Amino acid sequence: MPKETFSQRLDVLLRKQGTHLCVGLDPDPTKLPHPLHGRRTADALATFVEGIVEATRPSCTAYKLQLASFLAFGPEGIGAIPAVVRRIGEGRLRILDLKAGDIPNTMGLYAKAVFERLGFDAMTVSPFLGWESVEAVAQDPARGVFVLAHTSNPGARDLQERSVDGRPIWEELLQGIRERAGRGNLGAVVGATFPEALATARKVLGEDVPLLVPGVGSQGGDLEASLANGRGSGAGAMLINSSRGILFASSGDDWKEAARAEATRLSRAMAVRAP
Amino acid sequence: MPKETFSQRLDVLLRKQGTHLCVGLDPDPTKLPHPLHGRRTADALATFVEGIVEATRPSCTAYKLQLASFLAFGPEGIGAIPAVVRRIGEGRLRILDLKAGDIPNTMGLYAKAVFERLGFDAMTVSPFLGWESVEAVAQDPARGVFVLAHTSNPGARDLQERSVDGRPIWEELLQGIRERAGRGNLGAVVGATFPEALATARKVLGEDVPLLVPGVGSQGGDLEASLANGRGSGAGAMLINSSRGILFASSGDDWKEAARAEATRLSRAMAVRAP
Repeated sequence: MPKETFSQRLDVLLRKQGTHLCVGLDPDPTKLPHPLHGRRTADALATFVEGIVEATRPSCTAYKLQLASFLAFGPEGIGAIPAVVRRIGEGRLRILDLKAGDIPNTMGLYAKAVFERLGFDAMTVSPFLGWESVEAVAQDPARGVFVLAHTSNPGARDLQERSVDGRPIWEELLQGIRERAGRGNLGAVVGATFPEALATARKVLGEDVPLLVPGVGSQGGDLEASLANGRGSGAGAMLINSSRGILFASSGDDWKEAARAEATRLSRAMAVRAP
Repeated sequence: MPKETFSQRLDVLLRKQGTHLCVGLDPDPTKLPHPLHGRRTADALATFVEGIVEATRPSCTAYKLQLASFLAFGPEGIGAIPAVVRRIGEGRLRILDLKAGDIPNTMGLYAKAVFERLGFDAMTVSPFLGWESVEAVAQDPARGVFVLAHTSNPGARDLQERSVDGRPIWEELLQGIRERAGRGNLGAVVGATFPEALATARKVLGEDVPLLVPGVGSQGGDLEASLANGRGSGAGAMLINSSRGILFASSGDDWKEAARAEATRLSRAMAVRAP
């Protein structure tokens, strides 16, 4: 029996959990809840992230860990990752957000590090070094690779929206992703802050290629429009990420309860409408 | 007295060391020398990297650590970085090669992690998310930021060489780097595998903006042409990186001596011609 592809696994988990919510684990050393101040760095980080996972696990389909956030705690921050990945467990997708983009030899090292050493199910990559670099991390159909196409920040206009051969770069990238998605493990990152881009993305990618959508919450993306424009076939083939809105819902003693409440609210607002 | 900028410090060190050589510390778990096999991961990595630093320190101006390479050893690999940075010391430039490209909030976390927590003097960044993301890590004039323009791999053609408004993307990026280099800390990455691109790069960047040039050695870049085309004013404002040719010069008992010999040879071949 052929192994389940990443896209198939996403579809199964979206149906099971019933929500498009992906919780972004982007801890920030300067924003930890007050009750954790004064603790040792590694201890405060572990307590915070494990508390967030415990509070949000019933309400989400995936977690996205931001490499920069863990690195900002120093080497101990990276040391905390394997325990977080294990704590989340196989019942949710675990995505490492590092937007890797390097020469193929180096991308092979990233694949080894992220999928084998750290135990993630998927990672984000930048297309700036070309398709050979994307291919170098996308060899295993069971491991997902989300390629940046149109990011959620205003600076997305500087390069991604420039026009080559009569269409914007990000649209051409989406076409390239679709052409290479046959293995069942490529997806695209398109920000919720440009909802019209999401409609174009779904059209160019087809109904089955997964979308990872950052930018709702702190960044101001439109959730309703994102859901309407980004949903594909089956369970929708889409994850919508929220980080700061959940993590820093409260900085007081009730930080865990506040995170749980916000994740529950978002989970319902992002309900899957599977056929 | 105003603080020395990154570009000024590079010029001073190029004159003092007399070479453009930047040693790339890209350890690979599958390629460590035979005498280190069987040791504990962290121990083997530390012994290897410290041995390479000891053998090559007299022959170079800078070191570039590849994040993926250390991450491929697992969290312990990242744990080994601060000791390596301290071991190299302030007499050489220490560059973290992670090609970071994220939204400004996240880039701020990278700056904190790379410059404050890990102690690097410079880092590489990708321009895919626009200039606001580059600016977010380039606030301190003493810390260098090398922006990818034209990379050393064949895949550079897929996106970087595409034409917008009548000129290739990578040339436009170089123009953008020059316009933002006034703080004295921005540089550009241009691969040695495209020597004609280096000549264009130096012309667009002007004489003072630093170039970081990967791709000589294993990747087949032309050293003579790179030197002729990339040198700027003063001590040349250029670092040329060699990784695998030095690190894996021998896999036997003489690995350290072989690395020393190769670094010495390259150091002379990349001699600075300061006025």
